[in-house]
Amino acid sequence: MKKSIGVFDSGVGGLTVVRELIRQLPCEDIIYFGDTARVPYGIKSKETVIRFSIENILFLLKQDVKLICVACNTVSSVALPIIRNHFKVPIVGVITPGVREAVYATQNKRIGVIGTRGTVRSRTYENEIKQLDPNVTVLSVACPLFVPFVEEGWLKGKVVLEVARTYLKSLKDAGVDTIILGCTHYPLLKPVIKEVMGKEVKLIDSAKKVALEVKNILTAEGLLNRNRRGKHKFYVSDNPEWFSGLAKRFLGKTVRGEKQGESCIV
Amino acid sequence: MKKSIGVFDSGVGGLTVVRELIRQLPCEDIIYFGDTARVPYGIKSKETVIRFSIENILFLLKQDVKLICVACNTVSSVALPIIRNHFKVPIVGVITPGVREAVYATQNKRIGVIGTRGTVRSRTYENEIKQLDPNVTVLSVACPLFVPFVEEGWLKGKVVLEVARTYLKSLKDAGVDTIILGCTHYPLLKPVIKEVMGKEVKLIDSAKKVALEVKNILTAEGLLNRNRRGKHKFYVSDNPEWFSGLAKRFLGKTVRGEKQGESCIV
Repeated sequence: MKKSIGVFDSGVGGLTVVRELIRQLPCEDIIYFGDTARVPYGIKSKETVIRFSIENILFLLKQDVKLICVACNTVSSVALPIIRNHFKVPIVGVITPGVREAVYATQNKRIGVIGTRGTVRSRTYENEIKQLDPNVTVLSVACPLFVPFVEEGWLKGKVVLEVARTYLKSLKDAGVDTIILGCTHYPLLKPVIKEVMGKEVKLIDSAKKVALEVKNILTAEGLLNRNRRGKHKFYVSDNPEWFSGLAKRFLGKTVRGEKQGESCIV
Repeated sequence: MKKSIGVFDSGVGGLTVVRELIRQLPCEDIIYFGDTARVPYGIKSKETVIRFSIENILFLLKQDVKLICVACNTVSSVALPIIRNHFKVPIVGVITPGVREAVYATQNKRIGVIGTRGTVRSRTYENEIKQLDPNVTVLSVACPLFVPFVEEGWLKGKVVLEVARTYLKSLKDAGVDTIILGCTHYPLLKPVIKEVMGKEVKLIDSAKKVALEVKNILTAEGLLNRNRRGKHKFYVSDNPEWFSGLAKRFLGKTVRGEKQGESCIV
């Protein structure tokens, strides 16, 4: 069963999930697609995010994938509940694994969620947390400047610290003991967020649990590869140089982005 | 001659140009298109910016426009030299008017240019300035975080001031006496840029000169409207609420963005 795992994101953020997939599933081939021609998704409407996501899934299906991992919180929260009904291929999002971990981790039943405007507006995190434990108080905050800061490499220093202080103030005031990093870019800001929130606050980065869920599904379906070394391929809809330049920051190693054929998507 | 002036931009920034067009050409109808489904253009490749721009122009041509104003520095610098050859309709960009004003304004022959990565990479400003006056020294700096700051409404305060200080340091050190605001978002940051650079530095916002050039062309071609009150219509490819929310900041008045028909572009 040598079929690949398909992964997509609006741009580069999903590579933090790929990093974990490679670590936990070293025998699997991975095909990544980053929609760099239309990045970012976080400020766009639900309808548009759904349309783009379907196009991305169709592209991955052409590459003959056995499972699709949506490595983007905006897509997972806005579009996944709808698009999942339309495809036979198993689709794993990044919300549910993060929710489970956060509900398990919180002691005082106060969870903070940070993400893009689209993710926060969808209220998907709140709804999933409440379904799992109605007694948890959830406070969600959109942090739209975090993505540009990460992509520009401003990962530390007084400016990003001040931005983080502004965004996270209400979560600090509310005394949350757990924060879901509801955007695949945010794990790169962990040190800054820790500095603002204090070391005792748990930061939930769902990548590890997402990779575990992918592994569980492939195991259950008998689709897991063994005793081989997986290959990894990275497609983008635009600007492979920009992608490759940022990839190291997210993936921990250098990869080359390949331009998807003109006719495929946009 | 009641045909409209067509204006397009990647998103909302072009409204700073529309504001000036309305002021100087009150009898003209204006049709604006903001490509909010694919905003921003500043980080995208030349090929993609050209492709998106052609699609935007085709949309405006369907609305029967008599002139097209490219109210986006990235498109004007990256795509305009190429796409201008393909269309009969007069197309006015934002580069040349700003260049003329800056070369006229500088005393010490040292001009700074700030813009998106795409604009700076294209070297269009440098080339146009050098053509007009080879003795001018030009220093260009990409300020990619300025657009998200403006769109998020962080127009003053210590954070944006510190970002501006970082970006503008080399221009300050080089002693430029004139800075071209090479992005339609930047006029909203004039106070911050002034604070960093000092009051004596001239900030060139090309909108006024762009509107004047549009007026000159329409006059020369006998296409100017008189003795009527122009109507203004605003189309977007996504998220009309987001557009309408930001429009006031750029245009100085509230307008409603209308969703362009699904089939038109993306």
